[in-house]
Amino acid sequence: MQAVMNIEDLNAFLVQAFPQVADDFTIEEITASGIRVRLVVADRHLRPGGTVSGPSMFALADVSAYLAILARIGPKALTVTTNCSIDFMRKPEAGRDLLCDFRLLKLGRVLAVGDCVLMSDGSDRAVARASLTYSIPPE
Amino acid sequence: MQAVMNIEDLNAFLVQAFPQVADDFTIEEITASGIRVRLVVADRHLRPGGTVSGPSMFALADVSAYLAILARIGPKALTVTTNCSIDFMRKPEAGRDLLCDFRLLKLGRVLAVGDCVLMSDGSDRAVARASLTYSIPPE
Amino acid sequence: MQAVMNIEDLNAFLVQAFPQVADDFTIEEITASGIRVRLVVADRHLRPGGTVSGPSMFALADVSAYLAILARIGPKALTVTTNCSIDFMRKPEAGRDLLCDFRLLKLGRVLAVGDCVLMSDGSDRAVARASLTYSIPPE
Amino acid sequence: MQAVMNIEDLNAFLVQAFPQVADDFTIEEITASGIRVRLVVADRHLRPGGTVSGPSMFALADVSAYLAILARIGPKALTVTTNCSIDFMRKPEAGRDLLCDFRLLKLGRVLAVGDCVLMSDGSDRAVARASLTYSIPPE
Repeated sequence: MQAVMNIEDLNAFLVQAFPQVADDFTIEEITASGIRVRLVVADRHLRPGGTVSGPSMFALADVSAYLAILARIGPKALTVTTNCSIDFMRKPEAGRDLLCDFRLLKLGRVLAVGDCVLMSDGSDRAVARASLTYSIPPE
Repeated sequence: MQAVMNIEDLNAFLVQAFPQVADDFTIEEITASGIRVRLVVADRHLRPGGTVSGPSMFALADVSAYLAILARIGPKALTVTTNCSIDFMRKPEAGRDLLCDFRLLKLGRVLAVGDCVLMSDGSDRAVARASLTYSIPPE
Repeated sequence: MQAVMNIEDLNAFLVQAFPQVADDFTIEEITASGIRVRLVVADRHLRPGGTVSGPSMFALADVSAYLAILARIGPKALTVTTNCSIDFMRKPEAGRDLLCDFRLLKLGRVLAVGDCVLMSDGSDRAVARASLTYSIPPE
Repeated sequence: MQAVMNIEDLNAFLVQAFPQVADDFTIEEITASGIRVRLVVADRHLRPGGTVSGPSMFALADVSAYLAILARIGPKALTVTTNCSIDFMRKPEAGRDLLCDFRLLKLGRVLAVGDCVLMSDGSDRAVARASLTYSIPPE
């Protein structure tokens, strides 16, 4: 599960393939077993009350899984989510970015599986957790 | 599980509580066991290639569950998602709205559970399915 | 999604491939979109208090998915579960069999996805629901 | 999330409350954030081919969550599973016990949430992962 793309490669890919959301995310680190991604929280991610919305948290988990996989298999844009199970546990802290620590548990020929924990920047309490399966297109 | 809010009540609630997304959704019908909601697909919901994005489908499933529950318990805005498991099965058809048929399977004192199927308007093939659990705040 | 195995074929396959659990299950009907399977509840399926245990309900959902798929693709024993998300909603009624109504939502080349509702025999209230993904081995 | 029961307390509880499965499991360690539990694999846990069955892995994840929670809240037998999402990733190794590392991510008043990884004894490759939600009965 050695990375074949670095942060710059992944950012360039994101800007080119998903221009409409690339500004939302910052890749913090490609870790030994996965990736760490930041959701740069802006007004469009919030629910009334100032907490980050569920769809925004889903998007953070989903893009983290995608980037963790692409970092290891290269820029196969057609890699797609087949399943996500997400648990929302606590309200994110208002006015803070969200960080997602994703770990890849299996990178097979056809399927990749991993899970992640989301935390408000500066906190060590899990706001949400998610597990995701991606389908990798044949060569 | 008799409804205590009608479509007009739910729409008014949505506009007031979630003004930023209320335009995305149209409540089609409060059904015997749940609700049918339309995602009025616009550019902001799309991925490259013209298909509806995963977070937009998640948002449709999530809002449908929320509205199906509120229709039966009244406007308790603090009712929150605790879990969602979603399977993405086929690409939505380009240029079509998405319809979500949600059915409520349990409406307890503390937890509500249901599931839904998402289809492109005019098609009967499932694009995605999701099951959701909501936590209902005490009186 | 036409069936290529009938109830007798599936039962014979189950007895041969899974002799240790074949007695637990009865195939009630191969339906237009899936299958209906009965768990013949015995002492070994119970928790204290007389309700059916979680693992027994999981097993019923899992075998139903497996049989619904095999009925359509033939006896590929190596078809395996990759994901199951299950919600437990009510206690099963004591001293009753459990029935599982499974519907196949996608039968692809590589993945099959479906979901089911479990009810106590004679009741129409959902005891549990589950969604499952199976991986189908290449030819 | 300090433990209020130790391994001996939990074992005694398991033998008394779940005599029919208590022999299947050994509590290895109450960890800082969760628990580590062993499935003592016997013939009744196997599928043809000698690998551990899906329902047996589900049972290991489920009992681990249950014991991790009870270790912190005391012996409330009525604490029940409301959701489990489980991913099966690799075949367990034949003739090996399975170990489950469970971590508690939230222990609320009403709901507890955590996740786990299952590995064959002596291996560090994940065989399965699961996330579980438990409902805690009111006092």
